[in-house]
Amino acid sequence: MTGFKTPLKIAGGVALASLLLALPALAQDATPAEAAATVSEGVSADVVFILNSLLMIIGGILVFFMAAGFAMVEAGMVRTKNVSMQLLKNISLFGVACIMYYVIGYNLMYPLGNWLMGADETGGYLGAISIAVLEAVGITADTADDFSYAATSSDFFFQVMFCATAASIVSGTLAERIKLVPFLIFTVLLTGLIYPIAGSWKWGGGFLDTQFGFLDFAGSTVVHSVGGWAALAGAILLGARRGKFNADGSVNAMPGSSMPLATLGMFILWLGWFGFNGASQLAMGSVGDVADVGRIMANTNAGAVGGALAALILSGAIYKKFDLTFVINGALAGLVSITAEPLTPGLGAATLIGAVGGVIVVFAVPMLDKLKIDDVVGAIPVHLLAGIWGTIAVIFTNSDATLGGQLISIAIVGVFTFVVSFVIWFILKATIGLRPTAEDEDLGLDKAEIGIEAYPEFR
Amino acid sequence: MTGFKTPLKIAGGVALASLLLALPALAQDATPAEAAATVSEGVSADVVFILNSLLMIIGGILVFFMAAGFAMVEAGMVRTKNVSMQLLKNISLFGVACIMYYVIGYNLMYPLGNWLMGADETGGYLGAISIAVLEAVGITADTADDFSYAATSSDFFFQVMFCATAASIVSGTLAERIKLVPFLIFTVLLTGLIYPIAGSWKWGGGFLDTQFGFLDFAGSTVVHSVGGWAALAGAILLGARRGKFNADGSVNAMPGSSMPLATLGMFILWLGWFGFNGASQLAMGSVGDVADVGRIMANTNAGAVGGALAALILSGAIYKKFDLTFVINGALAGLVSITAEPLTPGLGAATLIGAVGGVIVVFAVPMLDKLKIDDVVGAIPVHLLAGIWGTIAVIFTNSDATLGGQLISIAIVGVFTFVVSFVIWFILKATIGLRPTAEDEDLGLDKAEIGIEAYPEFR
Amino acid sequence: MTGFKTPLKIAGGVALASLLLALPALAQDATPAEAAATVSEGVSADVVFILNSLLMIIGGILVFFMAAGFAMVEAGMVRTKNVSMQLLKNISLFGVACIMYYVIGYNLMYPLGNWLMGADETGGYLGAISIAVLEAVGITADTADDFSYAATSSDFFFQVMFCATAASIVSGTLAERIKLVPFLIFTVLLTGLIYPIAGSWKWGGGFLDTQFGFLDFAGSTVVHSVGGWAALAGAILLGARRGKFNADGSVNAMPGSSMPLATLGMFILWLGWFGFNGASQLAMGSVGDVADVGRIMANTNAGAVGGALAALILSGAIYKKFDLTFVINGALAGLVSITAEPLTPGLGAATLIGAVGGVIVVFAVPMLDKLKIDDVVGAIPVHLLAGIWGTIAVIFTNSDATLGGQLISIAIVGVFTFVVSFVIWFILKATIGLRPTAEDEDLGLDKAEIGIEAYPEFR
Repeated sequence: MTGFKTPLKIAGGVALASLLLALPALAQDATPAEAAATVSEGVSADVVFILNSLLMIIGGILVFFMAAGFAMVEAGMVRTKNVSMQLLKNISLFGVACIMYYVIGYNLMYPLGNWLMGADETGGYLGAISIAVLEAVGITADTADDFSYAATSSDFFFQVMFCATAASIVSGTLAERIKLVPFLIFTVLLTGLIYPIAGSWKWGGGFLDTQFGFLDFAGSTVVHSVGGWAALAGAILLGARRGKFNADGSVNAMPGSSMPLATLGMFILWLGWFGFNGASQLAMGSVGDVADVGRIMANTNAGAVGGALAALILSGAIYKKFDLTFVINGALAGLVSITAEPLTPGLGAATLIGAVGGVIVVFAVPMLDKLKIDDVVGAIPVHLLAGIWGTIAVIFTNSDATLGGQLISIAIVGVFTFVVSFVIWFILKATIGLRPTAEDEDLGLDKAEIGIEAYPEFR
Repeated sequence: MTGFKTPLKIAGGVALASLLLALPALAQDATPAEAAATVSEGVSADVVFILNSLLMIIGGILVFFMAAGFAMVEAGMVRTKNVSMQLLKNISLFGVACIMYYVIGYNLMYPLGNWLMGADETGGYLGAISIAVLEAVGITADTADDFSYAATSSDFFFQVMFCATAASIVSGTLAERIKLVPFLIFTVLLTGLIYPIAGSWKWGGGFLDTQFGFLDFAGSTVVHSVGGWAALAGAILLGARRGKFNADGSVNAMPGSSMPLATLGMFILWLGWFGFNGASQLAMGSVGDVADVGRIMANTNAGAVGGALAALILSGAIYKKFDLTFVINGALAGLVSITAEPLTPGLGAATLIGAVGGVIVVFAVPMLDKLKIDDVVGAIPVHLLAGIWGTIAVIFTNSDATLGGQLISIAIVGVFTFVVSFVIWFILKATIGLRPTAEDEDLGLDKAEIGIEAYPEFR
Repeated sequence: MTGFKTPLKIAGGVALASLLLALPALAQDATPAEAAATVSEGVSADVVFILNSLLMIIGGILVFFMAAGFAMVEAGMVRTKNVSMQLLKNISLFGVACIMYYVIGYNLMYPLGNWLMGADETGGYLGAISIAVLEAVGITADTADDFSYAATSSDFFFQVMFCATAASIVSGTLAERIKLVPFLIFTVLLTGLIYPIAGSWKWGGGFLDTQFGFLDFAGSTVVHSVGGWAALAGAILLGARRGKFNADGSVNAMPGSSMPLATLGMFILWLGWFGFNGASQLAMGSVGDVADVGRIMANTNAGAVGGALAALILSGAIYKKFDLTFVINGALAGLVSITAEPLTPGLGAATLIGAVGGVIVVFAVPMLDKLKIDDVVGAIPVHLLAGIWGTIAVIFTNSDATLGGQLISIAIVGVFTFVVSFVIWFILKATIGLRPTAEDEDLGLDKAEIGIEAYPEFR
């Protein structure tokens, strides 16, 4: 580094307490410096196309890595005897999601006006049924699907990773007591139908977008709550792990097998979220767009920090011990919370929005225990509850959002996802069954279904 | 995300069965949208140079991380008593590869016409002997080595990581029973001579490229099979681990110490492969190039998914258990399979090409056991056999490839690498010896050679 | 890859021994190729802004991930009973650093002329007190804070990660025997005051930059030695772990709990360093800048390789065993060593500069033991001593550096950081206390303060 950094405006005397609403309005009166040693202004259409595509390629790579993050969080939070199964599930569900999104999900979610039910003008309800097809090799501006946007390949690559993310959420909640085959069958339907249909209502230009002005920048509702609702429906029908809840209402702790893996997974997810939120700007070909991407990065990080520190302080205050799993889930809840609107908040507001997510985790985990809902990794507080909070919080920093529009959209996505998921889980339970035998569950799914122990020399 | 996604063409009614050959021809008739708010079309030469260089910088960073992926896969798949050794080998071989590629390999592989044997016109056989030298600090268009391409520094940074990848393949196969010093001496020769010479025949403009029209986009043969042949030669001369094969022909399972590490390693390799294949486009400065990079990303992912799911289904069908190590290696084999041609296939074809790689793994692992070849991590099926398959599969989607040209190139690279490797291993065995003493092997190499146990508190 | 690589100049007959000083002068006389198929030369001001911002966004993402690297290195190098605490510390300190840098550190470090003490002309001593404020959403060239540089958001995102890095260094040294609360209070002051103030003296345009011509490209001194001095002060006041040093002067080895985690952490840090050093170029909008970024990437990698291999060879020669922890720390020391000047060295010089860092590790670790300074992960050799070496080594390849200017700057930063840190640690020790009770230390901090064991099933 040689020399000065950018001359940001210094806002003295801003009270922290006023950050939540005030920050977006600050920092406007910049004095532009002279541009030196450049030939002209502006960005050519080709370069815009290239930079937009590059943003989504980078974003897709980062979001891909979230699959590893989910796998590590879940491997760390289940007991040793179920670790291999959890790893296998995470690889398999990713594969299933990619296949299904290719075969049907992508065009179901982004029908580009070719709605089976509804239309762009009035808002669509059901997208198009067809496989995804990328542009040919070596396109030109004239042969690009949409020269004003980006390469279809980069868009598909980015979007398919979001679909996999939604599926990953489910596996953590249902860990340690569901057989592989019914889980994967559900994943087929979640990633091929439920997620794309719900997603189309907002991002595909569907009725939530058109009729309710629903805002969900990177998917607190469209991705995270969808995964959370599906997980909740499954957890209710599946029941708790054997021995988790006692008849007297007390709860047996079943601590996860490896805190380093869980922490690593959290960091990987946090890393991937920079792609998840940052590349959801979908554009990097102008001064404003790249600065916005930078804002999103800084805010996404702030949200995670707020969630982690809030959970740290609150868990320390309540339980007199600093609970690592609360902090891990607090960071993740902060990330989910900021996902619905990572652009408009200031840094202070983003931190506070994330902090509320961390608070939710600390209170919701014991609440689920009281309801005898066994959520092994805490995905329901993190992805569903913080997802709802984040979607509501959009109204604090983005004046285009309305409380009514946000709430009704949360409700519609929630009812749809929960009901359809519940029916699918119910049918699976009634037919091939969801749970292994009690003996297999006690033995552990690694021995029962996988045949490979996670740590064969350590038992 | 605000608004619609790219208007991809929807191809209704395409039967999945016809995907393998048909996909590349689809998706052509796009209607270009109007470009808004940009000053002109086209990309300036400077920007092309910058974007090309950036692609390779990003690619180099991602491929670097594959070193961590190999280390984790191997640490997870060896027994506890050899984990520290395997980690040390992976760090050390990476260092050796970087030094050797700098000192001799880079110019041996890319002689830029200065062949010691052969010439660009007729195809070279042996490159140039000299150290790599980057461009000076602060070059301009006039002083760049090749202004029409990219910064030499970015090219070197990208290429040196490929060399390290080839070396990483060997260490997994020979794990748990080879001393550090002979292994590193072999690595010196592999990364300084074998890999660069074989690589020059294709990527340096050598005789396989010129005379046989050999196509190997990112190195199924040039990188992966080279590593695989070297590993196979070593495995034959080194022999199996003590106790692996019984006199009666039965095989003792020696399960790996940590499935989470192996799974993490697979995900890291998968991540790195986006750089490996994607940045091998070597250009991102036009609409067509960036769209192609996106295609490669999507196809690379599809190949991995195909391999993982094929191995999952097949292992479940054959063994009635879902074998995590098959799935891990299936994903990796899918990646190797798509590496020779990640651009021209459609998504369906890419998935199928990868799936065949996964099938290869499930059948080849027991086959190697029958041959009493002890391949600890399965690198021979993954990198050699899937590498051969992937190189052949180029002919299905790229009409520039010929079966004869692919086969003869596979054979020439194979014979060269195997024979030279065999001779080197043989000399090392006859001189300083390859194996530790039986006592040291039973004790574990961590105690014998490293002095640091991987998990000192867990035994 | 199709076709030739860049025509780098081949420098035959360059003796390796002359590399250290000669390399920067080589590789000048390139013959520029003709640019084809582009519309013009040059880069528009908008594109420069976008590319500069993109570089820092990518850099920030990579440096963020170093938090995971530190967490894994430390989790692997402490004993099982303190692993959860170490993980929690690494998440928490990152959060604290981000908050403090936002609330005060950023403008304290980059006052943009608004010094509380000093001025740009004479060199500042104390920056500005105010919170950081990003540019508004959707800026244009006219409303950007500094259109000639990059988005403030991207700069903040990049810089905040550096602040967190400095804090991470401290936690490793003091592991296994410091309570969470005093550690976090120190982190508040380190990241809010010490690091930004020391950093402002160089990177903010302060007096070290102005009056002494101090050169520290990416922070061997400004980041790494600051963390190292703070850790050293803490280690002296905190004392060693119970049982580490015997009365007779002998040392009890307390081997780390997981070498795979430590190795993974090293690889993650290495990965992140490409952002740390590479993006510190702060510009990617010209041919020269992007080529320089490539140089930095290649040199950073070479430094790590030099450090790892030097430690491997030296530890093997001295101890007759190849010590994995030396190799891990050797690689990290190589990275720290090249951080002060990753641009001007040639590849050979970079390798040698890194190698000296690796040598420092092998000699300094036992030296610290003799001094009875208990540095659990070896952060003092890696970050402080190699940081000093790297800062001095700038004079070998960059003629703008003077030995006097480097030494006096190292000393001023060192005295400031050490004294202030010592006072803070002293006050904390005298008030709330630094250490847990002897019982808690023996029990392990996971049970004492966290309540969650890292591996509950493995003891």
